[in-house]
Amino acid sequence: MAENDKTHVAMTAGGAYSLATLGAKDVINGAWPIVLDAIERIPDRPGSAFTFSDMGTADAGTSLEMIGDAIAAIRQRFPERDVQIVYTDQPRNDYNVIFQMLHGLTGQASYLDRFENIQVMASATSFYNRILPANTLDLGFSATAMHWLSRKPCDIPDHVHAVGATGTSLKEFQLQAAKDWEIILLHRAVELAPGGRLVLVNFGVDDEGRYLGNTGGINMFDTFDAIWRGFVKDNMISEAEYAAMTLPQYYKSVDEFCAPLEDPTSTVKQAGLSVEHCESRVVRCPFAAEFQSHGDAARFASEYIPTLRSWSEATFSAGLHKSRLDVERDEIIDNFYDTYESMVCAAPEGHGMDYVHVYLTIAKES
Amino acid sequence: MAENDKTHVAMTAGGAYSLATLGAKDVINGAWPIVLDAIERIPDRPGSAFTFSDMGTADAGTSLEMIGDAIAAIRQRFPERDVQIVYTDQPRNDYNVIFQMLHGLTGQASYLDRFENIQVMASATSFYNRILPANTLDLGFSATAMHWLSRKPCDIPDHVHAVGATGTSLKEFQLQAAKDWEIILLHRAVELAPGGRLVLVNFGVDDEGRYLGNTGGINMFDTFDAIWRGFVKDNMISEAEYAAMTLPQYYKSVDEFCAPLEDPTSTVKQAGLSVEHCESRVVRCPFAAEFQSHGDAARFASEYIPTLRSWSEATFSAGLHKSRLDVERDEIIDNFYDTYESMVCAAPEGHGMDYVHVYLTIAKES
Repeated sequence: MAENDKTHVAMTAGGAYSLATLGAKDVINGAWPIVLDAIERIPDRPGSAFTFSDMGTADAGTSLEMIGDAIAAIRQRFPERDVQIVYTDQPRNDYNVIFQMLHGLTGQASYLDRFENIQVMASATSFYNRILPANTLDLGFSATAMHWLSRKPCDIPDHVHAVGATGTSLKEFQLQAAKDWEIILLHRAVELAPGGRLVLVNFGVDDEGRYLGNTGGINMFDTFDAIWRGFVKDNMISEAEYAAMTLPQYYKSVDEFCAPLEDPTSTVKQAGLSVEHCESRVVRCPFAAEFQSHGDAARFASEYIPTLRSWSEATFSAGLHKSRLDVERDEIIDNFYDTYESMVCAAPEGHGMDYVHVYLTIAKES
Repeated sequence: MAENDKTHVAMTAGGAYSLATLGAKDVINGAWPIVLDAIERIPDRPGSAFTFSDMGTADAGTSLEMIGDAIAAIRQRFPERDVQIVYTDQPRNDYNVIFQMLHGLTGQASYLDRFENIQVMASATSFYNRILPANTLDLGFSATAMHWLSRKPCDIPDHVHAVGATGTSLKEFQLQAAKDWEIILLHRAVELAPGGRLVLVNFGVDDEGRYLGNTGGINMFDTFDAIWRGFVKDNMISEAEYAAMTLPQYYKSVDEFCAPLEDPTSTVKQAGLSVEHCESRVVRCPFAAEFQSHGDAARFASEYIPTLRSWSEATFSAGLHKSRLDVERDEIIDNFYDTYESMVCAAPEGHGMDYVHVYLTIAKES
């Protein structure tokens, strides 16, 4: 298992937002050697467009640089072929911003300025369904997206996340995650052309038991959980509300990622997929890294908490009882993140959201 | 030349908006026999997705029903093949509304509920550029979109539209339209698979000289022009502003549509395209048709003018001098459409925007 201890480049402009996307962008850019290796192994299909999908792309900003590099490598290897880039996410994602950025309407540089014969498309089909026609995908990519389950199998009674689940609820999450992973892979097995590759970079649990926000310092999910439990104790929320705050996520272990790709009796293996490369990496929290140089706890806390809020707020807010007024709901949610921010401000050491990803290259038999 | 005198179904709900889209939808639904005929002639490509593009789709509402019917016909003919639908328009179009409608988030019925193995995509690439990978398009469709030129070649000094242009300015518009048509067709020639078809339904001038808003009654474009000339005379706008109000559109004659597809020395013909079917049709203005039954001139005028405004306002407003304040600009534009509305209200007979379209099926050699 390699660990990426890459030093962050200094921020030139922008504040918390750039820093927040820098982390996710670092993860993707760090995957570049793996993507390049996949491009070099994918067989030629003369006369067909080389089709690349970016699944769960959000605003397509974090993968922009890497996809530009990928197009250059694909063009070098197959100079005669069109290259089709398909950006995918859920139906409610904002595709207009992706197109406007790529077509030069936002002032940002786009790889469309550098290359000819690139066809960019968007698909609003989730990776839990089939996105592309059969046998057309040369290289499927996804980063930091497939930890979101297709459904929450149950509420976890004693934690907000499956990383803290035990007993029956843990089992239900494990089962749901295994089923979802199988569905994701089976749809991709249909889409992939013979010899096509997937490079999937997903949140996971590494062989040392580390996962997002739990790499030796203060456990981020346990902090979430402790603050909400405190709110229950102080009668600010009910036990039922606490239970309903379960995040519909699961971080698979390396073994769980690989199981269906290695078991010769599995549907996935029988569909022709197998693991070509697997490693886990830790990418440092950019906020905690910056704090090491600026030393300002209040700044760290105020920059760091919004990124946690961005992906957790919807679940926590939905857990609050329907009868609550919006103003009351907003107050509780604000109070929650303010509490977390105060904790970081008062004792910043050990806080941070290091990323732990499992990087997989999966090949379809040719 | 067939003429479609289809009676409009009674409106069940909605007002001017539904009526406005009904016209465009009538035009597309009227093209159904031509689309079906094309589907029946397109050769099989076993193992490949049947790829259908809707170029210049706007919100994809007017073609929704026809595309559902097309999928059913394609599925019947090629039961084993995936069907890929690619919605295309300009980079600034709203693709989010298209995806949300198709994926059932708006409550509207979608063909995705009726069929399996349909892959829906969007492309924000204009039809003046290549949209799809080479040799992948089975059926390309476009309705009421390709009259917009890629650029305005010149201002027309004595009319707001090329239908009223003469001399040099007419020649420049003819040249630009011919170049643009060639570019559109050459990109499609690359995209089309051998034996693939285009069904293009475009505003044009029929063999009796009729065109949009000019089918025997009062000429809509001459009315536009007369009102603006009146504004010049009354010193409400300058001569230069009037000249700058030229709409960047051109309505080709049947001969102009067919010329590059019939001339054996043309690049388009050499790229393998030829005309398989050509007809022009008049589809009655839904507002004028409704007026015949309700007889309320004020209602007709108030429902009819907004649809003219929807596609002409941007050009007219851009023609006004940059130094004008927004409030002044809005006042002039409101005044213009109010004047038109008053004219219709005072003497409604003969007003209306009948559609005149040229329907073309173009085949690529197989």
